[in-house]
Parts: sequence; structure tokens; C-alpha cells
Amino acid sequence: MNVTKNIAVVGASGYSGAELASLIAKHPNFSLSGCYVSEQSLDKNTLLSQLYPEHGNLLDTPLLPLSASAFADIQAQADYVCLCTDHKVSVELAPKFLEMGKKVFDLSGGYRLATSQDYEQYYGFSHPYEQWLKQAEYGLAEWNAQAIAAAQLIAVAGCYPTAALNALKPLKQAGLIADEKIIINAVSGVTGAGRKASINTHFCEVSLAPYGLFNHRHTPEIKQYLDHEVLFTPHLGNFARGILETIYVSLKPQVTSNQIEAAYQVLADEPLIRLKGAQLPSIKGVAGLPYVDIGWQQQGSQLIVVVAIDNLLKGAAGQALQCMNLSSQLQPELGLKGAW
Amino acid sequence: MNVTKNIAVVGASGYSGAELASLIAKHPNFSLSGCYVSEQSLDKNTLLSQLYPEHGNLLDTPLLPLSASAFADIQAQADYVCLCTDHKVSVELAPKFLEMGKKVFDLSGGYRLATSQDYEQYYGFSHPYEQWLKQAEYGLAEWNAQAIAAAQLIAVAGCYPTAALNALKPLKQAGLIADEKIIINAVSGVTGAGRKASINTHFCEVSLAPYGLFNHRHTPEIKQYLDHEVLFTPHLGNFARGILETIYVSLKPQVTSNQIEAAYQVLADEPLIRLKGAQLPSIKGVAGLPYVDIGWQQQGSQLIVVVAIDNLLKGAAGQALQCMNLSSQLQPELGLKGAW
Amino acid sequence: MNVTKNIAVVGASGYSGAELASLIAKHPNFSLSGCYVSEQSLDKNTLLSQLYPEHGNLLDTPLLPLSASAFADIQAQADYVCLCTDHKVSVELAPKFLEMGKKVFDLSGGYRLATSQDYEQYYGFSHPYEQWLKQAEYGLAEWNAQAIAAAQLIAVAGCYPTAALNALKPLKQAGLIADEKIIINAVSGVTGAGRKASINTHFCEVSLAPYGLFNHRHTPEIKQYLDHEVLFTPHLGNFARGILETIYVSLKPQVTSNQIEAAYQVLADEPLIRLKGAQLPSIKGVAGLPYVDIGWQQQGSQLIVVVAIDNLLKGAAGQALQCMNLSSQLQPELGLKGAW
Amino acid sequence: MNVTKNIAVVGASGYSGAELASLIAKHPNFSLSGCYVSEQSLDKNTLLSQLYPEHGNLLDTPLLPLSASAFADIQAQADYVCLCTDHKVSVELAPKFLEMGKKVFDLSGGYRLATSQDYEQYYGFSHPYEQWLKQAEYGLAEWNAQAIAAAQLIAVAGCYPTAALNALKPLKQAGLIADEKIIINAVSGVTGAGRKASINTHFCEVSLAPYGLFNHRHTPEIKQYLDHEVLFTPHLGNFARGILETIYVSLKPQVTSNQIEAAYQVLADEPLIRLKGAQLPSIKGVAGLPYVDIGWQQQGSQLIVVVAIDNLLKGAAGQALQCMNLSSQLQPELGLKGAW
Repeated sequence: MNVTKNIAVVGASGYSGAELASLIAKHPNFSLSGCYVSEQSLDKNTLLSQLYPEHGNLLDTPLLPLSASAFADIQAQADYVCLCTDHKVSVELAPKFLEMGKKVFDLSGGYRLATSQDYEQYYGFSHPYEQWLKQAEYGLAEWNAQAIAAAQLIAVAGCYPTAALNALKPLKQAGLIADEKIIINAVSGVTGAGRKASINTHFCEVSLAPYGLFNHRHTPEIKQYLDHEVLFTPHLGNFARGILETIYVSLKPQVTSNQIEAAYQVLADEPLIRLKGAQLPSIKGVAGLPYVDIGWQQQGSQLIVVVAIDNLLKGAAGQALQCMNLSSQLQPELGLKGAW
Repeated sequence: MNVTKNIAVVGASGYSGAELASLIAKHPNFSLSGCYVSEQSLDKNTLLSQLYPEHGNLLDTPLLPLSASAFADIQAQADYVCLCTDHKVSVELAPKFLEMGKKVFDLSGGYRLATSQDYEQYYGFSHPYEQWLKQAEYGLAEWNAQAIAAAQLIAVAGCYPTAALNALKPLKQAGLIADEKIIINAVSGVTGAGRKASINTHFCEVSLAPYGLFNHRHTPEIKQYLDHEVLFTPHLGNFARGILETIYVSLKPQVTSNQIEAAYQVLADEPLIRLKGAQLPSIKGVAGLPYVDIGWQQQGSQLIVVVAIDNLLKGAAGQALQCMNLSSQLQPELGLKGAW
Repeated sequence: MNVTKNIAVVGASGYSGAELASLIAKHPNFSLSGCYVSEQSLDKNTLLSQLYPEHGNLLDTPLLPLSASAFADIQAQADYVCLCTDHKVSVELAPKFLEMGKKVFDLSGGYRLATSQDYEQYYGFSHPYEQWLKQAEYGLAEWNAQAIAAAQLIAVAGCYPTAALNALKPLKQAGLIADEKIIINAVSGVTGAGRKASINTHFCEVSLAPYGLFNHRHTPEIKQYLDHEVLFTPHLGNFARGILETIYVSLKPQVTSNQIEAAYQVLADEPLIRLKGAQLPSIKGVAGLPYVDIGWQQQGSQLIVVVAIDNLLKGAAGQALQCMNLSSQLQPELGLKGAW
Repeated sequence: MNVTKNIAVVGASGYSGAELASLIAKHPNFSLSGCYVSEQSLDKNTLLSQLYPEHGNLLDTPLLPLSASAFADIQAQADYVCLCTDHKVSVELAPKFLEMGKKVFDLSGGYRLATSQDYEQYYGFSHPYEQWLKQAEYGLAEWNAQAIAAAQLIAVAGCYPTAALNALKPLKQAGLIADEKIIINAVSGVTGAGRKASINTHFCEVSLAPYGLFNHRHTPEIKQYLDHEVLFTPHLGNFARGILETIYVSLKPQVTSNQIEAAYQVLADEPLIRLKGAQLPSIKGVAGLPYVDIGWQQQGSQLIVVVAIDNLLKGAAGQALQCMNLSSQLQPELGLKGAW
């Protein structure tokens, strides 16, 4: 198919923005219409490859300030707009591009939860665009492909939820999970904390430790799309890329290993899912790769599922590209397997 | 007090053996009577500081083969014998030194479980020295100090159990824990896997990943000394030293934060325990240090306890030294705070 | 062009072998005819993706023992044979495949030096196949492309020499270098030491340190292809992939910055070379990428050139693929930029 | 000897300040009179152990703002004042404390160079206190012990110079070095860049790379105290603590290995110097330790000296403590070997 889409990336100086720009630049059917940062950004007018020397040659493209003329350029040139911005910025920017008739792929949490009340409770603000919130489709590619293809606004799934939901929805859908709360113990690499300089991401301060106990915003996101109670505990790990989740599931009585195996078959043909059975995933197995790796072991009614993704690829930019492929009626994995 | 004890370290070429030798060499009341390795070891007659350049000056002492004459030297010179050997080796060596009348501090799992049947089930062999097994005291220093001081054979607690038990025994003892199984999600640094060259400890292969699901030998050790059902899941992390455990505890109904706080007061005066309340421990906070750091947060009947230790110090050599201090009627932390 | 070449990879279980297999598997014009290990290897008949979970899906292909029937299969099916084996093994294997009429790409040092005497001096053996040694072409792709395209035996350049020679040959060719010895201070990631378990590559033992002072085998390789005296000092660094060389060059009197700039123009159009001028390369800028990054700064007659490559890509598998592209009259960078 | 000195640490929130505070807190003859930060610091009134959980129990002491009353307290209580502040701050603060009659130990570069002109050339300002600059003694403990003991103002040596000078002064003093420029290739851990959040110290951005070519301020410091021309090239390495320098020295004709060996004997009895001969130091061998490790290998008139220190200990806080020991007529290594 000979489609070509022009794509604007807003918030391109951050880790997921730059990753997404690099994927677009290598994609056979997509091209970058422009990379944008806020008008206040110190990085404006810098080449993206100055910030990311690894992308020299590929991304020798300037970070344009998102001025009035930038909006006009995007209106004139872009087919899709990707928002790699903070959720508060995304909430305000998305409607502007939607009203231009653009398809918008938002990598923030700004349009992921169901209702304005959810935003009040978990994000601390009342969502100002409930109409768009209702129209937003959740960008969890393997589970919502048709809706993603048809939607104008895609709320690309969060990093931790992408791992957790791919690991758990097969079991939930097959009716194997007991009523008890599921415990998700998760560790993310430091790119997940963003590129902004902070003492928490200082090389000498990073060290495996938990954070956000009981109140991380990915908790309601997981619950909403899984429809099951979870206790989600994130940790920061001392590596750059990757998420590993060790998930403790209580099974209904008499669930057999065959039933579990069968439940996961729903994902068996997905090109970006690797079912590993009793073999357990690791960070190394997925860093820099577009996959979700899922392994599991069972003892009686206790199941442990281990799932790993690259937080910047399947957990952000990779899944955004996958959603854009779906929107363009392309193979969902196009331009991602080359990322190997 | 002007006690001086001569101490032989058997298995001194490994990480916990070398760490223990260094602690003894710096201790005001202890001195090294000799450092030993097996007669087959390729490291025999090498200086310990050749293997560990960080211990240059301090440990320019040869690794002696454990020959017949070595046994005679130990008999003649040593007060205490520390076994930093594999559990199978420890099981056989301990009685030899015990029969010489030495106090033996075994850092392996060879004398930690209660009965020979436990060894059949979890270690795959029938324990040949049930009499000594009965007499062994568990070397969990804060919880068994009097018995440790009086015993001839001390089975120094395992690394993961030391963290878990110090985190959980206060709650158990106060009767706050509901019947549900406790989930212990643990991550250990690579020194925990030993110094032996192996593909699993290759620099380029180490990557956060779980191992030993459902069947790690520290599971029965924790259960036995906690008297509660646990699901223990260890992971290997990409750092050299330290253990972090994130522990999910279901509380009995109506347990208050004050009750939890009060329960932990049992450890408040222990010099090597740091109670951090709602602040959460990290690997960085304990690496190279003799402490157990314990923090916790509660939401209703769900409690999360986070505990961190240095696996080679409080998880092995440090606690062995603490036990020897107790045996010698010295302050338990003597020679450990200087390890700061 | 619709060429397809079948390629056998011998020694596919090591880091450069597996990297090369993965590049071939993704290449539009190449396909893997088979992955081989020695008949004694413990990895034989294992899937390559078992050893390298990151290559799951891509390399679910068995590691075949290099038996008599394997030789027959290679003879029947392969166009090219890549040797990712130790230099002693390569020396013996190459003639067998050459005599079958195959093109052989040897990633070891077995055919890189000029004469049998060089091998006596630097490798400690007399080279048994002087005829083949004479016919071997040095696989430094940017500098020997025509000969590589025409040769039957290509001795793919070593990792350190690839970085050093691309950094220095432009200056040498332009006649800018004074007679003084050039000092090359180099640091390599741990993949450079191979995948074999060893105490030197143990996660807890790796630490920045020099090795091989005055006598590393890459010294004669650099000298021979640069035709200048060098003092080359390698270090092992605590990272997995990448080489950084800081090179101290004395310039002839009155050499200007314009002359240096002009000298490097010889590489300006090479697709896998990135000239960075006064900006200095880093490991991060090249890890996982097929490029040579070259930067430099001058003060009077003192020039410092900093060069970085990924040791497994441009320093081994990437350059081997580039040589095979040249042999097949394909674009030299084909299948490598997709490795981004 | 029963001396007790009260010591104020100004700039205690940074890496070297906190390290020094921890050494003082453990020292048998020193005690902390107070830990200070600037009045503008966001860390003021925080416990030092909040910033450094590893120092919990030891440094549960507040970071006091350096207000007028703080000056009064220091005047009343402190014997020594340590400045762990930026060189501009140190330049201004030192005279205030000197005029109170305090001994001042400045860990910055503010009083290390010989003349005001040096400061104009290398630091970009004219030194406002030339009288104090003249009186300052260079705090390179092994080489200037008597003067340090007698001085009121000690300019503690810089991290890179401490390593380089201990490695080179024995050779220089013995007259073995030829006229050629000495090349010093150095790599420092990230603590050397300070604790301030910055993109350069972000966990995901740190990667081995050179910086400050030809113009680092430690170049004149090394030259001045070595009295020889050097080309000094620092790199940032991806580890927290430690400096490794690989030093290329041209020897005078006919210098023998015995002469080199003999030259280094000048340091043989120093308790914090470890001469390793042909064995080469590593970062691992010194991290967390108070030593200078020096090794060397020779080939004809080419000598390579490799030297390693912990940048926060021998390169900063450790050497400051050593200087304070000298001032107090204590053993120079007192309170440092316990840092093992």
C-alpha cells in the first residue's frame, strides 16, 4: 500500500518524543512534518541530534517552537499529531488539533481515564473537555485495534498498564482470576522518569527503591481496563530502559495449567507479543525492542505472571506507532521490527 | 573488655568469606588465625588481596589449603571457626570443628532448618548430623541473642530471611497479621550469586529478572522462623550489593497505624536496625553498611513493608560478626559501625 | 537489485556471531543458511533465541554442530561463510570453505597480519596457510572497498583498529602527522571480552582498568594499516557495548585546523561515518548503532582525536555485513541503518 | 593523645561535604561543630541524613543556614573550618574564618594556584586576597606534611592532581623524566561532577566521554606542583566514585626498571599509598577507600603509570581529613583506615 502520512511530534525533546521521531523517520510510510517543543523550551531551534547524538544523521532536524505559525504549519502539513507532552499540556493541546480535523495520538495520561470525576480523584483537576474524553479511544493496540483505527483521538496506553494489561486481560477474559486483589510489583528504568534534570534521576542517586505506594495514577488506568481490583507498586530501577512486572494472581479453584495456556492463545498470533510459557522474561530481553514478553508459573491456585516491555517502545513510542499503523490500515508492526 | 579471639575463616576466597575476613582484620578484639580454601581450589596460596585488590594492605594474607596440617593449626590456634562454604561442605566440616571444641559460625544453609526431613524436602539430602542440627541456634542476631551467646554452633541467618524476618517478626509478634499468605518480592545484587564465573553472572548477561519461583530454599527458612505462610519470589538485580524486599501484608481488621508503629518499637533500640516509618528504604541507603532499613505504608488492611540490607554485611558476614560479638560478650555492633 | 545470498555463520553462539546472525536475518537480500557451533559446544542444538532472549522470534533457529554433514550442507547451500570463531579455529576453518569456492568473511585476527613472521611474533604460532594469508584482503570497509568486493577471503578488521584507523588514516594520508609515536588510549565494553564465563567478566569484578599494556595484538594490526608507530593501551570499561578511543597525535609544524578539516573530507560521504568536528563522541552516541563517530580538537601542534564505535557492530558484525554488501554489489550500509 | 577538635563543615550538602562530615563524625578525635549550607539553599534545616539515607543514625544533624548567627557560632565553637564550597564562595569565605583565627581547609580550587595572574588566566577572575593566597599551603598530604601542619590556610589538592602528582612526583624527583610533555588520560566517576541536578549527570545521559580538552583547571595545578609540562584530558565515566589515570611518560635514555622502582620507594612507608608495581590499579580497587594505588609498566624509554583514587576520599574529603590530622599532630591516616 502506498500511503504516506505526515506526522507532527509535539514534545519531541523528551525521551518518548525523540524515540517516536526516530521511529517515524525510519518508517517506510510515515514522514516527520515537524518536531516541536514549547515556546519557552531552552531546547527550541536546537537540532534534535544535538540532544541525542545517537540520532545524528537521522534526526538532524530542528526543535521548532510551538508558535502560532507552527500551528498553521501543522494545520497545513500534518496528517497526524502526536503529543509527547505532560498530561496537563496534552489536555489543552489535543482539542486544538482535533478541531483542525487531525488525528491525535496522545502519549500522556490526559485522555485515558473514563470520566471527569476520575481526573478529579486521581489527577487533581476537573477535566475541561469531557466531550473529547468520551470520544477518546484507549490505545492498547492488541485489545482495541478496530476502535483505534476508527478514532480521531487515541489515548495511547501508559507504560506500566501496557505491560500489566497484556499480561492479565487474557486470564480475565477467560474467567480464571479469583476475586482477590491482584498484586503488581513493577520496576521501571530511569527513562520512565523523563529527561528533565532532577536529583531523583542523578546518576549517583538512582538506586532500586519503591515510590508512589497506593496512589500511582496508573492504578486506576489498570483497574478501568482490566475491571479487577489491583494493588500496583512501582519501583525505580538502576537501568535506563525497560519495565519488569512480577504479578501475583489468585486463580479460581481448580484452574489448570492447560486453561492458562489456552487463555494466552488469544495473543499467540500478535506480532509484537512473545509468549514464553514457563521461561521468565528479563529487562535485557526487551530493552530496545518493540515486544511484550510474557511468562508465567503456577503452583496450585497461585499464579505468578512476569511481563517485560521497553517502556519507551511498547510502553510509549512503539505503541503510538502501532496505533498510527492501525489508523493507516498498515500492518501493526510495520517500522517496529526494524527497530530490532 | 580486653578479650581477644582468634578466628579461622574457611572459604575465604568467596564474597562473604573475604568480607568477613576484612571485618575481622579491622575488629578491635578479633584477629584472623588463618584464611582457608579447599585443597582443590585454584586460589590456594594466593594472597587474599590478589583476588580482592580493595583489601590490599589489610588482607595480604595467603589463602591456605584446608589440609590435615591446617586442621591441626586451627585446632591449636583458633577460638572460633567461620564456615563461608557451600552448604554441603559446611554440613561435613562443622562437626569436625565442633568436636575440637570450637565455636562454629556457619554462613551456609547447612544447619538452619529444623529437621532432617526439611533437608530432604528442600535441599534434597538427608541430614547426616541430626544431633548437631538440633543443637544449632539460628543466628538472627536481634531475635535470638541469648541463645546465640550460649551456643556452640550458630547457623547464621540467610540473606533474604534476615531482611524478611526483621521486617515481619515485629508485626507477627504483635498479632497484627491476618491469615493470608504474605507476599515477599525480593531483589538481590549479584554478589549474592557468588564469585564463581558463570554465564548468569556475566556482566553482559545480568539483567533484572526473577528466578527460583515457588521453590527457593529461603522460603522454608522464612516460614520456620516467622511461623506464617509466605510466597517468596527472588529476583537478580543489576547491582553488586544489596537486597530490597517489598512485602505485601494483609492486616487483621481495624489494625491502626499506631499499632504498627508500636509493634516496630521492639526493634527501636537495636543499634543495627533503622526504622524509617513512612520513608522507604533503597539499595543505596544500605550498600556497604551493616544496617537493616525498614519502612512501611498502610492503606486500610493492606500494609506494604519495604526492607533493605547489604546482602554481604547484615545478610552474611556482618551478621556473623554480630553473632561472634554476642558469643564474646561484646557490643553486638562492635567493628560494624566502623564499616560505615 | 534482486540478489539473495545464503550465509552460514560459524561460531554463532558468541556475541559477534549472534549479532551477525541477527543482522543477516533482518537483511533484505541475505538469508541465514545455518548457524553453527563446534561439535563440542554445550550450546549445540539449542535455539539461538534461548541464549539470546532479545532475539526471540527473529532467531528461533538451532545452533548446529559443525559436523561432517554440516560441512556438506554449507557446501550445498551457502554462498558466504562467516567465521565468528577464535583466531586459531578460523585459521584452520577458512581454507576448508575457501576450497569449496565459498567467500569467507573471518571476524577473527587469523588472516589480518601480513606475514607468517608477524604471526610468530604477535600470536605465537607460525601461520600454516601463507598462500591464503597473502590473498586475504583487510576488511576495513571504507578504505578497501574495491579489494573487498573482489576478494574470496576477507579478514574483517579488528574492533580497536577499526576505530583507530578511521580516525587516523585521513590525517596520515594528508601527510599531517609528525614522526612521533601516536598514543591511543582505548576503552572497550565487556562484550569485547566474549561471552565465555570468566572471573574477568563477572558482574562484580568488572571495573575500569587497563590491560595488555605494550603487547595487545591490535597494536601490529593498527601499525600495519596505518604505517605509523603507535602506542596502544586498551582498557576494559564497565559497560556492555562500545569502544571509545582518545588519540594523541603530534602534528607537523604549522598544520592548520582547515587542513585537518579538509583531511577528514575523504570520509564525508561515507554513510556509516559521522564527522563531528569539535564535538566529542561518547559511548552512548554509538552503542547499538553502525557508525564511526569522529571528533577532534587541536591546540598548536597537538591534536586530540576522539573516536567511538559499537564494538559488535562497526567493530565486528556490522562491518562484516558491510563487507558482504560490498561483495554483493549492494549499498554498503544496507541492512545496517535499519539497525538504528 | 587526647586532643579533640571541633570542626565546622561549610557546604555539607554536596558529595564531598557530606563525605567529610561522615568522616569527622566517626573520627576518634574530631567532632562536628556544625554542618552549614548557604542561606539560599533549599536544603537548609533539612537533616543531612534525609539527603543521604546511607548516613542515617550517623548524620541526623541539620544543615544550618550560614547566617550571621552561624558565623558567631562557628567563631565560638569551631577549631577548624572546612570549606566544601564552589571556588568563588571559598575565595570569599576563607578570609572571614581566617580572621577569626580559625584554621581553614578549603577543598575548592580557590587558593591552590600560585598567583593572582594564574587565577586571571585559568579561572577568569583576579584573586582578591593575594596575601592569603601567598600564605596558603597546598594540601597534598604526602608531599607537604610539615607545611600543612604549620599553616593556617590549607588548599586541599584537587582530585585529578592528587592522583597525578602522587604518581609522577617520585619520578620527577628522581630525575627520570625526559623533557617531553607527559600525557595524562583520566576518567572520573560522576560524583566528581557534584550533586546538583543537571542533564550531564542524568542517569540516562552519563556515558564515557572526554570533556574540557586542553583547558581544564587542574592542568595548571598539576604543572605547578610537578614542574613539568603535561597534557591532561579528563573523561566522565559511568560509575559513581573513583578516578583512574593512565599516564604516558617518556623516560630519559637508559632509565632502568630498578631506578623506577627505587624512585617510588619515597612513598613506600606512606600508610595511604599502595605501590603495586607491575600490577595495574582499577576503580574497584579504590572505590570507598582512602588509598592511592600506583602501578607501572615500562618498555624501553616509554613508561605507563596507572594510578587510581576515590575522588571523594583521597581526592577530597579523605585528604582534607588527613591534612587536619597533620594539623593536630595525629597519625595522618587516623579515621581513614576505619573507612575501609
